[in-house]
Amino acid sequence: MAWSLEEVAKHKDASSCWVIIHRCVYDVTEFLSEHPGGSSIILKYAGRDATSAYTPIHPSDALEKNLSPSQHLGPVSDEAANILAKKEASKKKTKDELRVEQALKQRPPLNHILNLSDMEASVTMTHDIRPRLMHITASCQAKNAQAFNRFFFNARVMRPVATCDPSTQILGFKTNLPIFVSGAALAKLGHPLGEANITRGCAPSKIIQMVSSNASLSYAEIAAASSPSQTLFFQFYKHKDDAVALKRIREVERLGYRAIFLTVDAVVPSNRERDVRSPWVLDMQENGIKVYTEGEGAADMDPGLGSAGALIINDDRDMTWEKTIPWLRSVTKLPIVIKGIQSVEDAILAAEAGVDGILLSNHGGASLPPLEILYRLRKQRPEISQKLEGGVRRGTDVVKAVCLGAKAAGLGRPFLYAQSAYGEVGVRKIIDILEREIVTTMRLMGVQKIADLTPDLVERVDWQPPARSAKL
Amino acid sequence: MAWSLEEVAKHKDASSCWVIIHRCVYDVTEFLSEHPGGSSIILKYAGRDATSAYTPIHPSDALEKNLSPSQHLGPVSDEAANILAKKEASKKKTKDELRVEQALKQRPPLNHILNLSDMEASVTMTHDIRPRLMHITASCQAKNAQAFNRFFFNARVMRPVATCDPSTQILGFKTNLPIFVSGAALAKLGHPLGEANITRGCAPSKIIQMVSSNASLSYAEIAAASSPSQTLFFQFYKHKDDAVALKRIREVERLGYRAIFLTVDAVVPSNRERDVRSPWVLDMQENGIKVYTEGEGAADMDPGLGSAGALIINDDRDMTWEKTIPWLRSVTKLPIVIKGIQSVEDAILAAEAGVDGILLSNHGGASLPPLEILYRLRKQRPEISQKLEGGVRRGTDVVKAVCLGAKAAGLGRPFLYAQSAYGEVGVRKIIDILEREIVTTMRLMGVQKIADLTPDLVERVDWQPPARSAKL
Amino acid sequence: MAWSLEEVAKHKDASSCWVIIHRCVYDVTEFLSEHPGGSSIILKYAGRDATSAYTPIHPSDALEKNLSPSQHLGPVSDEAANILAKKEASKKKTKDELRVEQALKQRPPLNHILNLSDMEASVTMTHDIRPRLMHITASCQAKNAQAFNRFFFNARVMRPVATCDPSTQILGFKTNLPIFVSGAALAKLGHPLGEANITRGCAPSKIIQMVSSNASLSYAEIAAASSPSQTLFFQFYKHKDDAVALKRIREVERLGYRAIFLTVDAVVPSNRERDVRSPWVLDMQENGIKVYTEGEGAADMDPGLGSAGALIINDDRDMTWEKTIPWLRSVTKLPIVIKGIQSVEDAILAAEAGVDGILLSNHGGASLPPLEILYRLRKQRPEISQKLEGGVRRGTDVVKAVCLGAKAAGLGRPFLYAQSAYGEVGVRKIIDILEREIVTTMRLMGVQKIADLTPDLVERVDWQPPARSAKL
Amino acid sequence: MAWSLEEVAKHKDASSCWVIIHRCVYDVTEFLSEHPGGSSIILKYAGRDATSAYTPIHPSDALEKNLSPSQHLGPVSDEAANILAKKEASKKKTKDELRVEQALKQRPPLNHILNLSDMEASVTMTHDIRPRLMHITASCQAKNAQAFNRFFFNARVMRPVATCDPSTQILGFKTNLPIFVSGAALAKLGHPLGEANITRGCAPSKIIQMVSSNASLSYAEIAAASSPSQTLFFQFYKHKDDAVALKRIREVERLGYRAIFLTVDAVVPSNRERDVRSPWVLDMQENGIKVYTEGEGAADMDPGLGSAGALIINDDRDMTWEKTIPWLRSVTKLPIVIKGIQSVEDAILAAEAGVDGILLSNHGGASLPPLEILYRLRKQRPEISQKLEGGVRRGTDVVKAVCLGAKAAGLGRPFLYAQSAYGEVGVRKIIDILEREIVTTMRLMGVQKIADLTPDLVERVDWQPPARSAKL
Repeated sequence: MAWSLEEVAKHKDASSCWVIIHRCVYDVTEFLSEHPGGSSIILKYAGRDATSAYTPIHPSDALEKNLSPSQHLGPVSDEAANILAKKEASKKKTKDELRVEQALKQRPPLNHILNLSDMEASVTMTHDIRPRLMHITASCQAKNAQAFNRFFFNARVMRPVATCDPSTQILGFKTNLPIFVSGAALAKLGHPLGEANITRGCAPSKIIQMVSSNASLSYAEIAAASSPSQTLFFQFYKHKDDAVALKRIREVERLGYRAIFLTVDAVVPSNRERDVRSPWVLDMQENGIKVYTEGEGAADMDPGLGSAGALIINDDRDMTWEKTIPWLRSVTKLPIVIKGIQSVEDAILAAEAGVDGILLSNHGGASLPPLEILYRLRKQRPEISQKLEGGVRRGTDVVKAVCLGAKAAGLGRPFLYAQSAYGEVGVRKIIDILEREIVTTMRLMGVQKIADLTPDLVERVDWQPPARSAKL
Repeated sequence: MAWSLEEVAKHKDASSCWVIIHRCVYDVTEFLSEHPGGSSIILKYAGRDATSAYTPIHPSDALEKNLSPSQHLGPVSDEAANILAKKEASKKKTKDELRVEQALKQRPPLNHILNLSDMEASVTMTHDIRPRLMHITASCQAKNAQAFNRFFFNARVMRPVATCDPSTQILGFKTNLPIFVSGAALAKLGHPLGEANITRGCAPSKIIQMVSSNASLSYAEIAAASSPSQTLFFQFYKHKDDAVALKRIREVERLGYRAIFLTVDAVVPSNRERDVRSPWVLDMQENGIKVYTEGEGAADMDPGLGSAGALIINDDRDMTWEKTIPWLRSVTKLPIVIKGIQSVEDAILAAEAGVDGILLSNHGGASLPPLEILYRLRKQRPEISQKLEGGVRRGTDVVKAVCLGAKAAGLGRPFLYAQSAYGEVGVRKIIDILEREIVTTMRLMGVQKIADLTPDLVERVDWQPPARSAKL
Repeated sequence: MAWSLEEVAKHKDASSCWVIIHRCVYDVTEFLSEHPGGSSIILKYAGRDATSAYTPIHPSDALEKNLSPSQHLGPVSDEAANILAKKEASKKKTKDELRVEQALKQRPPLNHILNLSDMEASVTMTHDIRPRLMHITASCQAKNAQAFNRFFFNARVMRPVATCDPSTQILGFKTNLPIFVSGAALAKLGHPLGEANITRGCAPSKIIQMVSSNASLSYAEIAAASSPSQTLFFQFYKHKDDAVALKRIREVERLGYRAIFLTVDAVVPSNRERDVRSPWVLDMQENGIKVYTEGEGAADMDPGLGSAGALIINDDRDMTWEKTIPWLRSVTKLPIVIKGIQSVEDAILAAEAGVDGILLSNHGGASLPPLEILYRLRKQRPEISQKLEGGVRRGTDVVKAVCLGAKAAGLGRPFLYAQSAYGEVGVRKIIDILEREIVTTMRLMGVQKIADLTPDLVERVDWQPPARSAKL
Repeated sequence: MAWSLEEVAKHKDASSCWVIIHRCVYDVTEFLSEHPGGSSIILKYAGRDATSAYTPIHPSDALEKNLSPSQHLGPVSDEAANILAKKEASKKKTKDELRVEQALKQRPPLNHILNLSDMEASVTMTHDIRPRLMHITASCQAKNAQAFNRFFFNARVMRPVATCDPSTQILGFKTNLPIFVSGAALAKLGHPLGEANITRGCAPSKIIQMVSSNASLSYAEIAAASSPSQTLFFQFYKHKDDAVALKRIREVERLGYRAIFLTVDAVVPSNRERDVRSPWVLDMQENGIKVYTEGEGAADMDPGLGSAGALIINDDRDMTWEKTIPWLRSVTKLPIVIKGIQSVEDAILAAEAGVDGILLSNHGGASLPPLEILYRLRKQRPEISQKLEGGVRRGTDVVKAVCLGAKAAGLGRPFLYAQSAYGEVGVRKIIDILEREIVTTMRLMGVQKIADLTPDLVERVDWQPPARSAKL
């Protein structure tokens, strides 16, 4: 049976809610209450075509995973398909979309990208997409990055550096550089091929990719994009229902993912005001200053928390060392890493809980920068194995973290930006940049291999150096 | 008897000074010397209608309290009333008033206000009102606020936070959040309903309001606006005449106020130059650059100290621990809190004097920020019970203060701004914002309830992080 | 005998050099080599009228003191006087002079001056005068002033402050405020009445004026402007010839000056580039961008050091504790103060040398700010009596210095600016401002009198607060 | 035999590559692989005239030293010479060249240059030359320079300073000031006479010049420009082939150079992004925004490293204390100084290796500023003899370094700028400026001679003073 638009249009509220996605009709009435992004965003499209809103956020297996076969109602009629196609074709581009189109034409050629700041500056997105992809709080980002600024090198000379090897291992898996791709969701918002750009871009240099639970491609699609010698880790957002969580683990185990990074610093979304503010800014740019009527907006006292907030709404907020780690250990043989340690105390607890590693990072807010935690940790408990993430933008940053004891440094958003701006080749580009910066830094420090990056090679000063500018 | 404008106009100097307020005539000749704002401002209106200047500053019972019945001379004649009404109707709006009218129309809808900085930015006032309501010295405000910036969280993970309760008690009275409204005068300048907007806005969340001695509504009006379950505190500016001061206490006791916050940090007005400068700025904006004649202004060597200075001109400048606290204790059973402690030494003296609490705050100048006093106090005398006020603009600020030992954090001007911009609903809005920020922060720190906010969760760093921007 | 312009014009070089000043002819041939400002500036006017260049810099007794009677050649002829008068009358004003004229008309009335920054901003001068009066290095000024920013008050409450007396004594002489006027030369450049404006402005409040050796009025003129109860100190720049120096001391003793402030921190002029650069900037503003011919300027490898440099060219550069202090003690009974101490070590040496006091100050360069020296001195040798000068712009600055042990704080340029902008009444104005600020600060700190300003009331913090802005 | 352009044009690729330089033809086919700047830059001119690209970078003996006689193919024909001459004459100037021509005409006369910042500001160069001469990373320069800002003088008074002698010795060689010219390559890019401008400018004041291995004049040309009493040092970049390196040492020994400064901090080029970016910026300025086609630039994943990188491509990257110093000692009797020490540890190793001195400096990156290393070194091993280089821009900087134990301070780029802007006379000018600043500073500190500049005269503060501005 094929559906007419008129029939679909009858199911336009919570009592019966149908939507059209890619020319197929779905009954999402029961799913409304389970949708991580809330029901109101679905109801906005009730009885209508939702394809353009659905596609850039959801992996291809989302409908299959979340709806039962009976809720797949079948295709629309040919007539309906024609009407939808015409509508799409005649859709007028917004000013903002035209701006982005123009900017893409004037994008710098890839060999003009000399550092990660250049890469970030080359990203052009519409105003409604930009903050969803770049949604970490700006003040947190600045603090995490500036933390590196207070550490200087005690570079050593007269040491042979003709050969210099930056390769190392993370959890026993080889990597050409002491970096990895941190989990970051929603890559399809920036580029239609999404996270697979990162997977393919990392292949030549064996950079390990940590895939987010909330990736916009399915875990299988990303695994399929990887080469046989490539390592994938899984950033695990634990669902509050253990059974659902376990299903997710089983899936990534089956797909060959090699480690579980349990995310513990995002039990609730942090304060992402830019994300929330974005549509209003867009609206004002398109339509000029608006005069609101008295009381308008007063009813809506609780604005949504943006895309990032929606994604974790069903996650487990009651995890504990006593309960969650033993459970995870009992269900999987994969190495377990705790992602989101923000204090020395928790680093110690994690070590005592017997996990295979920790990842120092924060999701914004007012926590101490990860590098500062690393510095304290190295002094108090140098034996605890960890990685670091947050604010890394230069090869010097990576080397500083490794000197202070980190096995590797994770970068999330730089990879999102690179694939958004140039796809797979952009990802390769920033790996090349980081390799050049890391090797140059190692050589200028008189160091031949990662194991020689030791704490005595860096010094934290007691003053605040001038902020580093994006451009050198 | 009803007065003609001609008759009133005869009483136009200090020898006999009449004014018209709300169509009634008052003989203020004797009151001239007692007026807290000085005689010159009254003499400006001698023999004339003073309604527009009088109304936004004075509570409704000010005439009754300050003038004897014989000084109430009765209404103006119908003819006079007609003339005054016509005059008002024909009064041309200034450019500045028109600017504010326009700005009010383009005010953002309330759901676009995401944080307290947004709220402050949405306030639109004429240039002569703005500084009187926003009159604290800007440099002091910046210092108090930036103090929070040097404290970071040691956020903890793997602790259950699905339930999270930010409610607590202040002096034994329940509140949904560890915040309270600090005393702030002159609310009617911002909104015709004045302090009652705050009272009504606080009711649903049981936020406690401290009412200033210099509120622009009468204490009775504010009490009448409160709901039965609501708690009001009284910010007590002690008159130099004990009898007058006692009368004030008896009044608020009778009205059901629950505590006395004796203000000790404003024995003289601090240096509020913006307040003084405001009318000149306005004058220049309206009339362009003025060429002053030689010597003009030279006579007037002592500019007034602005509205804030006027309000405390009769206050007691000779309070002491030995004299004032025992007296206050002897006349009231209400809990006594000292508001304006700016040093650890005085915090200790206050504790020894047996008061029920202290409020760390300053009125500007070059005192150490309250948060720094709190930090020192916690180290030296952690058992001393206190609250903190000054520079609080984020839920993270509140949580930092509570971690360091404050029972609650007071906010004054944010409430003034909120009621000025949106009335009661604006007050509700910023409480909602603070609740969301406080709860999010608590959860991200792994904390379920106020009692778990302990000093080990914050760390003061020895460097100066970048200043926080208003927008995230 | 009366001279024709033609006759004077014949003496136009170093072999015979005559100049006309105020219609009289002087033979300065022999004086050329003794002129503190060097011979080239005189030779520029050789054989011509030098009045306009001479007047604003030299005291009225300069010709008498420096030239022998035989070098006073007598008046010009009436015809010559007429020609000179016509020339003056027909002299066209420069753009810069017209700019200043216009600015003076739009100068704010005096009651709009709320603080010392306002006063500085109200000064309008031509580009060639401005840097000579405002010639201290800007970076030094900023450092001296910002030093105050790192000291905060531990304000005390519950102390009676209804009465508050800021009067004190300096070297046993009464003053209404713990401030004094520091020696600052060339006041006539800013206002035709010069240093006498300061003398008269200080009279009502008994503020003590330290008169510079290089005042643009004669010491006698300044003494004559003072009231009987007024105290004058003398800022002594010691000539390298003891006999000349002694003559200067005898003169001020005779005129009733009460103390000698021996200046020791200006043995050579500091680096006053703005002063040197000023005429070029002016030239460019008047005449636009100039194209210099190849090699032009190359000959002149040694630009002059500006007015300030000229004034001290004959001073003693070989002063020592062993020689100079005993000599000074042997020739005068006046109290001796060493002005220009920049280290704790020298403060101790001065005390051991038995002087009556020291004045912590610097003349620019990269010395530690005086307040920092004061802070170190108080810790190591609190008993050493001193004053402080440099960067003081607020009553809070004065109070901080006094808390840390300074008997008083000196202000130089603020008085120069005040008399330049408004004459005597400007001087009174800034004293009023400082009195208000000092008394307000003392009251807010719970202090009734100068003796109660103790070190425990201030605290130096280990972070850098935001720079204070000129406007509050 | 004389070559036609047609014949030369046949040899236009790597299989047979001829170029014309100054009307002579060279076969560089075999040399392609040895060219320090890589083969691609030569191949760009294969079969064509390369004179304009070759001249400003290469010393006059470069062809002789690098090509065998058989590779010198002889002159072009007269006809060919005529065609080349016409081509040159008709070459149209770019907008950028015209801009520079205009700027040179409006260059300030030399007596308007008051400090080294003025000198830097007076340099005008085309966009492709500028970054090659000014190629150190800007952020590193800022950090090195700001390090001086945290050191203050404890200036002493009452010490005779009428005579003040800033002369001293470096490695036993006399110099009028405690400064020297640090090695800096490519001077001909800024001025046609190149490094000889510096040599001649230094002669009168006996300032010692350290000549770079990569000077754009031959070592012989520079030696020839020196006066008999003048001292030259040699900045030695060691070639990876000991024999080639030795040849270089023998040459400078023969030419009378007096010391070897072995450069150890530039084994690989640091990150000079401005240098790489420069041609693109120029291209955009000339041609406006360019729209690149899809994929353009993607092929070129490895942008060159700029001129600076090219120059050191054949240097020894495997130097060690054990191998390199004994070798160097064995082949030369000249004093050996290690240039590029960036840590206290290496300063000690250098001393133990028995070298004649060390030079604290860095080539960019994130190393601690040399002044900070000097400060640490003075505390731990004050006996180690060293010089300092990096960020020195004021006489006060020099004096601070000398107080902390440096024998002298090296300046590189200021001399490059001075000779670029004004040739030899510019070099003399900045020496005059530094002399005036050094002597003034010494006198204001109460110091007569270099030996009296002791550590107690400076103090490092624990706060960050405001950044110094270029202009005072």
